[in-house]
Amino acid sequence: MKRIAVFASGGGTDFQSIIDANERVRFCDIVCLIASKSGIGAIDRALKHNISTAVFSKKDYPDLEELYKKLTYYLNLNRVDYIVLAGWLKIIPESFVKAFEDKIINIHPSLIPAFCGEGYYGLKVHQAVVDSGVKISGCTVHFVNEVPDGGAIIAQRAVEVKTDDTAESLQSRILAEEHKLLPYCVKKLCEGKIIKTGRKVAVID
Amino acid sequence: MKRIAVFASGGGTDFQSIIDANERVRFCDIVCLIASKSGIGAIDRALKHNISTAVFSKKDYPDLEELYKKLTYYLNLNRVDYIVLAGWLKIIPESFVKAFEDKIINIHPSLIPAFCGEGYYGLKVHQAVVDSGVKISGCTVHFVNEVPDGGAIIAQRAVEVKTDDTAESLQSRILAEEHKLLPYCVKKLCEGKIIKTGRKVAVID
Repeated sequence: MKRIAVFASGGGTDFQSIIDANERVRFCDIVCLIASKSGIGAIDRALKHNISTAVFSKKDYPDLEELYKKLTYYLNLNRVDYIVLAGWLKIIPESFVKAFEDKIINIHPSLIPAFCGEGYYGLKVHQAVVDSGVKISGCTVHFVNEVPDGGAIIAQRAVEVKTDDTAESLQSRILAEEHKLLPYCVKKLCEGKIIKTGRKVAVID
Repeated sequence: MKRIAVFASGGGTDFQSIIDANERVRFCDIVCLIASKSGIGAIDRALKHNISTAVFSKKDYPDLEELYKKLTYYLNLNRVDYIVLAGWLKIIPESFVKAFEDKIINIHPSLIPAFCGEGYYGLKVHQAVVDSGVKISGCTVHFVNEVPDGGAIIAQRAVEVKTDDTAESLQSRILAEEHKLLPYCVKKLCEGKIIKTGRKVAVID
């Protein structure tokens, strides 16, 4: 059984979707939740499901490289196979990406390459989508590389943008898709059914 | 009945989709086909359906502004209400956009704002999509403004990109969607059911 660590910075609903799917049909060991600060909702969810938690915050580690060095040590100690970024709002240094090459996946709340990259996170993504007047948005699960939201794409789901959508109403419908897409991708990853060849990723049914 | 002109530079399958839909349930007068050169397939389709054709080619008008000036005269003479770009590969000067503000629509074979703008036309769009590894592409109908593929979006349709897609196979599936989306938008436009407010466009059902 593959061992995964989930990274979160907020309420942790994407994290919860993995917990729930894994309770229905077990496909991985969720070894730990890594939180970017104390007191976030994701920690409560971890505790409720007896998942270890560790906080790696800017407060404790003003130096980002130092934070990720300690984090790498922690993950290796826990023999983590894969890292799932489920709303992780911290910048990830290249050294960390290299240390876990093709082992880190992320979920982003838009159809990459649209509305992604630096500055596009959380509600800001959906606000930009709504303001732009596009009719389709969605979510993307991708491997993490050194470019923000720039890694090879594993899967995407489209969501219709309605004329009267606000950033909040759109976010809520896209979150519902994220909560299906992310566990699906984590399961496929843990089962060895995701084959990456350069930019192209095949998910085997 | 609104009077439309269709602009085409190639085989004219998008043009044909408007002809076919209009023959099923008449919603406009297709006053003329404007071709960017002689000998293209779209002209044959126009002739077959008794639609006037006019060629406005670089050969006859080396000066682009002059071409569009004459074209404007021609369209006004024919009392054209709306212009539909259906695979029109010529650059459109700002003066022409201004002359027909909110009267020109275009179909683009991707989900704008992804894979659009200068250099993205025809098969090149689909090749870029396939090379990038994205999982969802599609097509977009939008108003034309002074920015290439930058005008307010009227409607979009998503199309799944398959792992074994080539640019050609993807193009063929997206074309099938274009042939539904474009006549739908032209019909709504002619019926006065497209309401544009800045970047936001509502299509009334």
